[in-house]
Amino acid sequence: MALIVHKYGGTSMGSTERIRSVAQRVAKWARAGHQIVVVPSAMSGETNRLLGLAKELMPQADSAEAQRELDMIAATGEQVSVGLLALALQAQGQGAVSYTGWQVPVKTDSAYTKARIQSIDDARIRADLDAGRVVIVTGFQGIDSQGHITTLGRGGSDTSAVAVAAAMKADECLIYTDVDGVYTTDPRIVPEARRLATISFEEMLEMASLGSKVLQIRSVEFAGKYRVPMRVLSSFTPWDIDIAEEARSGTLITFEEDEKMEQAVVSGIAFNRDEAKVTVLGVPDRPGIAYSILGAVAEANIDVDVIIQNVSHDGKTDFSFTVHRNDYHRVLDLLNNKVAPSTGAASVTGDPKICKVSIVGIGMKSHVGVAARMFRTLSEEGINIQMISTSEIKTSVVIDEKYMELAVRALHKAFDLDAPLPA
Amino acid sequence: MALIVHKYGGTSMGSTERIRSVAQRVAKWARAGHQIVVVPSAMSGETNRLLGLAKELMPQADSAEAQRELDMIAATGEQVSVGLLALALQAQGQGAVSYTGWQVPVKTDSAYTKARIQSIDDARIRADLDAGRVVIVTGFQGIDSQGHITTLGRGGSDTSAVAVAAAMKADECLIYTDVDGVYTTDPRIVPEARRLATISFEEMLEMASLGSKVLQIRSVEFAGKYRVPMRVLSSFTPWDIDIAEEARSGTLITFEEDEKMEQAVVSGIAFNRDEAKVTVLGVPDRPGIAYSILGAVAEANIDVDVIIQNVSHDGKTDFSFTVHRNDYHRVLDLLNNKVAPSTGAASVTGDPKICKVSIVGIGMKSHVGVAARMFRTLSEEGINIQMISTSEIKTSVVIDEKYMELAVRALHKAFDLDAPLPA
Repeated sequence: MALIVHKYGGTSMGSTERIRSVAQRVAKWARAGHQIVVVPSAMSGETNRLLGLAKELMPQADSAEAQRELDMIAATGEQVSVGLLALALQAQGQGAVSYTGWQVPVKTDSAYTKARIQSIDDARIRADLDAGRVVIVTGFQGIDSQGHITTLGRGGSDTSAVAVAAAMKADECLIYTDVDGVYTTDPRIVPEARRLATISFEEMLEMASLGSKVLQIRSVEFAGKYRVPMRVLSSFTPWDIDIAEEARSGTLITFEEDEKMEQAVVSGIAFNRDEAKVTVLGVPDRPGIAYSILGAVAEANIDVDVIIQNVSHDGKTDFSFTVHRNDYHRVLDLLNNKVAPSTGAASVTGDPKICKVSIVGIGMKSHVGVAARMFRTLSEEGINIQMISTSEIKTSVVIDEKYMELAVRALHKAFDLDAPLPA
Repeated sequence: MALIVHKYGGTSMGSTERIRSVAQRVAKWARAGHQIVVVPSAMSGETNRLLGLAKELMPQADSAEAQRELDMIAATGEQVSVGLLALALQAQGQGAVSYTGWQVPVKTDSAYTKARIQSIDDARIRADLDAGRVVIVTGFQGIDSQGHITTLGRGGSDTSAVAVAAAMKADECLIYTDVDGVYTTDPRIVPEARRLATISFEEMLEMASLGSKVLQIRSVEFAGKYRVPMRVLSSFTPWDIDIAEEARSGTLITFEEDEKMEQAVVSGIAFNRDEAKVTVLGVPDRPGIAYSILGAVAEANIDVDVIIQNVSHDGKTDFSFTVHRNDYHRVLDLLNNKVAPSTGAASVTGDPKICKVSIVGIGMKSHVGVAARMFRTLSEEGINIQMISTSEIKTSVVIDEKYMELAVRALHKAFDLDAPLPA
């Protein structure tokens, strides 16, 4: 008997038909003797519908007061899901009970719309599991120390699932989604993309953070921190598929670097067109300048991704970074009205029509010339590189978004990811 | 400066357009210097949509476990409403904050889907009011002693509003709805129906309990118990109508029986086609038999309305009562499988196609022959009376539902309610 957390995405919960199928799958696992906690997302489209209503009433909900209300509204999507799934399980004779984030409770900080989980009390869940019930917990949300509802931001249900798995010391966290695993890149862009049977935690972290939409990055961080075994698999296989076969399917995120994995220099190509680029031009090059720019951005609760500062000329330098495209106008306002006057910068420019393309692979650690091969490939396609950022196991470039598909296809081929898997 | 509770129904909250208009009206009252608590219903259609999804997954959600999940699901409708209204107020520069039932908290018993309010803590609301915010509280829901979400049943938002008004000792509770007051009967059935400027609490209680959909009966009970001044008025007047005029509009529910009210013998005709009739035939007529039937029904949490037991023949009697039509199949099952065997009853019959029509008026207390005039009127229309039930200020009959409109129109005319108001 194992304790297993299942997470189902919005598409898997997209209709009562689909919810019934999720319930059948969950009940199969419970009948096999496992203790099951399920973390379902909101029904697909529901969070967008709710936030769309909110946007009609307040197009720019930036204040903490407004963001608190957005969380109040958005959290209902998952609450409906857990109730429906509990009913579907009960209708099949499987005992089940649902809990919201505040009922568990899942405690978070107070950063509305992007809160972080601080602790999860597993007493209530464990009591129900011991009583033979499947326990269904809302993803995406929690409660802060003042008793306000918070949400974790888009994709937060993955994080909730892994956090619950970590808190309960679950044997496995199965992330059921509408794809059957992690691919070398998005098959919609590169039809030759291959599913990976395993991927290292570090590679998954880079893939997720670079825009591969299969898993939310914070869930991977959580899984890494608490060493939660995590598997991405499809919720579109028939629910009555053999359970042993199902348990081996998809992509396993591993913590050991086995030899097989080192064979591939690059495991995948990730890309992200949700970012925008901003540059503060002509900043006096003196100590503390990076902090005076990025401190203000962080205070406004805007996440920054790639940061570039190059050598200075005549005591002035240009400082560039990327943010989520949704934050583009806010960050431009902030830079123009607060940061530029206080730092003595000459001007601020930006471009929301960019994308980031990255090669990811644990093999890069021990192979030279990988980045060079990436740059040559892009150059051969006539693609200009605007920004470069690297880590031990990935190299990212920012390019004009119109070249994104071309770049991904060229890199996928250049790094032999089109080749069939070795037998 | 007064403390005023506003309650808005589902139609008033039916779109972001309408929510914006509610916000403008509320902000007008706040600008006039009043402290305002708002209790909005779910957007119209939302509760039905949610319960429809639940029903697809479990057609008969009768167990306590299932009903708990129904409440989990249904409570989200109001949660969305309060968040949206808070945003709409904030967008107009009016400070506002929303709370769910569990955040206030509104404590209830654990009778899922028809819970009763036990206490309301007003500390949090009062602190926000004192800070100049409009406070928006979810109607229809609360939290039980175990921390489970409960709902108060259909129309529960009226009850929530009055309960909040009572707990806060509000100066007035304004029930904004899609009609402009309480009428002598439903104008859709009798075009000559007139709006009443005032109605006594007792009459309103009877009108509400008898199916006049303007107010939920428990809200009127609450208003009576705590003497909360309550006014039913339209949310469809322009939001910028003069506030003094608005404060006088609609129908006021009064606690003093003034002389004017005694002039009318019958104030209104109420009707209800949501009921079903069941009869336990051939019950041994011995002490405790009524309890052995109705005790079992009450234990199953089924509300009973009219109860009839006539004189017995040969030591046997027939015992009839009405229940909500939704409970019809449950009560039949219960009577057939549990009650009949244990009481030695001969058989059980029932009819869901009935309706109840009532005349209501405080003047009936001191006028004889009012019931007789009712029976004569129905007889002249050829309508057979199946059950009769009376109280000090009302007389109700159960008839075939196909005669409902005919009966209401005939009684409205017979009791001079068609006549224009005296000047």
